[in-house]
Amino acid sequence: MKLYFAPNTRAVRIAWLLEELGLDYDLERMTLGDKAMRAPDYLAVNPMGRVPTLVDGEVTISESGAIVEYLLARHGKGRLVPAVETQDFAAYLQWLHFAEGMIMPQINVIMVETVFLPPERRNEVNVKRAMKLLNQMLGAVDAHMAGREFLAGDFSGADIMCGHAVIVSERLGADLSDKVNLPPYIARLSGRPALQKARAL
Amino acid sequence: MKLYFAPNTRAVRIAWLLEELGLDYDLERMTLGDKAMRAPDYLAVNPMGRVPTLVDGEVTISESGAIVEYLLARHGKGRLVPAVETQDFAAYLQWLHFAEGMIMPQINVIMVETVFLPPERRNEVNVKRAMKLLNQMLGAVDAHMAGREFLAGDFSGADIMCGHAVIVSERLGADLSDKVNLPPYIARLSGRPALQKARAL
Repeated sequence: MKLYFAPNTRAVRIAWLLEELGLDYDLERMTLGDKAMRAPDYLAVNPMGRVPTLVDGEVTISESGAIVEYLLARHGKGRLVPAVETQDFAAYLQWLHFAEGMIMPQINVIMVETVFLPPERRNEVNVKRAMKLLNQMLGAVDAHMAGREFLAGDFSGADIMCGHAVIVSERLGADLSDKVNLPPYIARLSGRPALQKARAL
Repeated sequence: MKLYFAPNTRAVRIAWLLEELGLDYDLERMTLGDKAMRAPDYLAVNPMGRVPTLVDGEVTISESGAIVEYLLARHGKGRLVPAVETQDFAAYLQWLHFAEGMIMPQINVIMVETVFLPPERRNEVNVKRAMKLLNQMLGAVDAHMAGREFLAGDFSGADIMCGHAVIVSERLGADLSDKVNLPPYIARLSGRPALQKARAL
């Protein structure tokens, strides 16, 4: 398998999962904003010029949520996914999808308006609106995490998707002061050797 | 099962899937913007006050992508999902996640800036940027659809998630003139009796 990767992107999720599963992979390391991500040979792999992309034999797949589900179904041997008949299975799906559906759209706006756009084109109104929504979404995660160690029973793919989104939110300055369950959750995830390896790539 | 539903929302996806599978369900019909969606009894079911929400025995689940996967795993009997060992399985996951990860964030911005915000707070720059990105995302779907009838082999849950996003994009005025594969795809989906039933709810 080959993982097209850049630090501080959703590709960290995939490296994290590969490390959790102990799977062998080759890393193609790029840097966000790098010309290599827009070069013809990478656009042939991923026409959107984004990371992550995973190539596994004949399969090329690039949405991080899809890659997590793909790796667990094909190579997970039942690990990191609750059994279908349990209630945790529904929670697993809910939070796995919540990450991209509810949290990351706000993160994207904040990144665009504070990093990617040139200063003269940035719009403070957009940042404030996104931060307010982000706060609301994180509140939902916080409420769910009351009395739990992980989002869906034991550590699972949902923690990789949604936990990563929570970690990124904190890094971008989201207010966690009223969310008592999130700082310990972030600490719990950050203590995992597989995430530490993925962050050091 | 009970589906909390509003017309012209992501809840159409779930009604569509329930109809495709021939499953029995009760419909709790609301209207977008309706006070019922912010009423305490609904917030007890879904604290975000959004639709869809599906209640199935002890399970309450609300992200549309999560509900699609949940229903197929719990009640699908193998229908509408490619087998894990096929290449279509990776495509299934890719496009199922692409819908919310890449298309719907642009749709959300367009809806907020043209419908939900009062006119004096709308920002044309945001609409233009979202429409440009939407066009790019639809281009990726169009390229994939060349020579195909559906996104991942036979009709699947990916068509419900991503096909619905394509249908909504067209309704919002996305430019499909250079995307030769999308209008026939939309027609193919719109001809399905299950989608027609869901749209008539």
